[in-house]
Amino acid sequence: MGLKLEETVKGIMPASDAWRRKAREHLNNLAIPVGSLGRLLDIAEQLAAIKESLKPSTGSKVVVTMAGDHGVVEEGVSTCPQEVTLQMVYNFVAGGAGINALAGAAGARVVVVDMGVAGDLKDLVEQGKILSRKVDYGTRNMTRGPAMTRQQAVQALETGINIAGDLVNEGVELLGTGDMGIGNTTPSSAILAALSGLPVREVTGRGTGIDDETLARKVQVIERALALNRPDPGDPVDVLAKVGGFEIGGIAGLILGAAYYRVPVVVDGFISTAGALLAKQLAPRAVDYMIAAHRSMEYGHRYMLKELGLRPLLDLDMRLGEGTGAALAMCIVEGAARVIGEMLTFEDAGVARNKSREYAV
Amino acid sequence: MGLKLEETVKGIMPASDAWRRKAREHLNNLAIPVGSLGRLLDIAEQLAAIKESLKPSTGSKVVVTMAGDHGVVEEGVSTCPQEVTLQMVYNFVAGGAGINALAGAAGARVVVVDMGVAGDLKDLVEQGKILSRKVDYGTRNMTRGPAMTRQQAVQALETGINIAGDLVNEGVELLGTGDMGIGNTTPSSAILAALSGLPVREVTGRGTGIDDETLARKVQVIERALALNRPDPGDPVDVLAKVGGFEIGGIAGLILGAAYYRVPVVVDGFISTAGALLAKQLAPRAVDYMIAAHRSMEYGHRYMLKELGLRPLLDLDMRLGEGTGAALAMCIVEGAARVIGEMLTFEDAGVARNKSREYAV
Repeated sequence: MGLKLEETVKGIMPASDAWRRKAREHLNNLAIPVGSLGRLLDIAEQLAAIKESLKPSTGSKVVVTMAGDHGVVEEGVSTCPQEVTLQMVYNFVAGGAGINALAGAAGARVVVVDMGVAGDLKDLVEQGKILSRKVDYGTRNMTRGPAMTRQQAVQALETGINIAGDLVNEGVELLGTGDMGIGNTTPSSAILAALSGLPVREVTGRGTGIDDETLARKVQVIERALALNRPDPGDPVDVLAKVGGFEIGGIAGLILGAAYYRVPVVVDGFISTAGALLAKQLAPRAVDYMIAAHRSMEYGHRYMLKELGLRPLLDLDMRLGEGTGAALAMCIVEGAARVIGEMLTFEDAGVARNKSREYAV
Repeated sequence: MGLKLEETVKGIMPASDAWRRKAREHLNNLAIPVGSLGRLLDIAEQLAAIKESLKPSTGSKVVVTMAGDHGVVEEGVSTCPQEVTLQMVYNFVAGGAGINALAGAAGARVVVVDMGVAGDLKDLVEQGKILSRKVDYGTRNMTRGPAMTRQQAVQALETGINIAGDLVNEGVELLGTGDMGIGNTTPSSAILAALSGLPVREVTGRGTGIDDETLARKVQVIERALALNRPDPGDPVDVLAKVGGFEIGGIAGLILGAAYYRVPVVVDGFISTAGALLAKQLAPRAVDYMIAAHRSMEYGHRYMLKELGLRPLLDLDMRLGEGTGAALAMCIVEGAARVIGEMLTFEDAGVARNKSREYAV
């Protein structure tokens, strides 16, 4: 059967404040000047609060890359042909994409999910190379009506939730999000505008690299879609249905599932963070489980991070998606897990304490 | 025997511009929007230019953590007792330090070197746990005369050069620098002031966390040492001898050795970058082989990076040293190596505008 959306949202508990305090106390006793590992200590604390442990292992890592197509590409919002979504799924399976290279560097497995590619991937499904969770063959064009039905939106979310559940059951300790979908910066900007009320122009960027004319058209397309569909910012399922995408719903669900099962989730760039915004809107405490991987070059990403109150770990001028930022950031997260789980305290290491008051807890 | 300083400096060749161009051409054909992997592409290019290869492997990684003591601690520039240097060497060997945790996350080996610890480490040497390259039992107090003789400075540099050589001969493909030495932000600031001419006050920070009074004393101590010894900014060996440290000389040498043997070297924080400044002063092209790991919280680090013209990969509010920043950054560097070495081009992946799919059923 699988977990339902409502049940999941209700079941998401805050990360543990008590364990956060225990972790801070332990970290303050490590044989280093207090605070000298900077943001690694914050992440270490967060991991401890999530996993209720001072040895929060993140050794088993998976990046879930969700693929889907978008009817709105008919409006000429991207310069890439739609079939690139499907072709890139083959590239993921062949191991030749950015996410494969960077997951390799991080020691993470990549799980590719067909959430709604506008083409047939039966061969890959039969070979067990991807998960087939196709909601439909691409969304509908949101300038002519809702991108999907409300039922499809719930299905996309529950798909993500249950993929998280399956992976956690298999023993996965750290999740990462990723996306593939030609045109998907358009729904992501639309979701941000709908939820935040920011002007579309402010939150819309160049995606894969469109020119000024195409950018102007993209802004108009999003404005038209919002004017026509009037998504209700108080109802994130409505926002997803009207101006979202299947892979974005899947990502939002994956994040909710991670929160429900108390596993940290590294959120990739612009498209993934649109999913994270929906997840937060559905279950505000889900933010406790999120780690922002990097600051995307896609301009609107900064507004999303601000809405979530998250500071990204990396800032490397990346804007590829696929989960590439999440994979890279997993190295940092694993470093933080090892800092709290493996380092010795002053006492255990036989290291004399500093006399400075700065060392005092 | 081993390589001599002069020979090394003369033998450092620039990284290959021809391979840099080949790399850029290849990277522009990867099945991604051009430039969308941001700074990873710059690092990938640098690796290709260093290794003269489009598959510049960095799988075998070592962080070399060099330890040494400083006579200047007599002046009360640190609140840590000097014996912490020795105690931390034992902690490195026990695997309980920050560098162990973060090298573990990066899949790197840690090599600990006694460059000049003011204490006996014979047991660890006999057990093969550290390299014994002790130049002396700590430097002399630089407010009373040179920290070391010119001969000792050359010895420290050549020691680093030959450790790089040995590791490269063993097959190491990526080096990282690290330091341990109570009081060593003091000589590092002194080196920066001597080489750059910047006011001591500007380039001196709180190290392990000293208070205002101690900071004022530290500034005066460095000013006195510079006034007394008058290091010649045009002669980096003189600067190292007069106001440096054995581990800093070892790090400078390691970087020169990496450049000589054409292996990329990830430079850690404040102390390591003082070594990098000396290396650049000795052999300007050595910068081609350097990758700045992170921006340290130690304030003067920004001036060092500016002198080198390097932009750090990470900015995580760290200020521990030991090579911890270098270890973390190695994950990013390996990511970049895999991007250029493993990703497929549009053609190879069958991802293309208007091109028929090679993977079609």
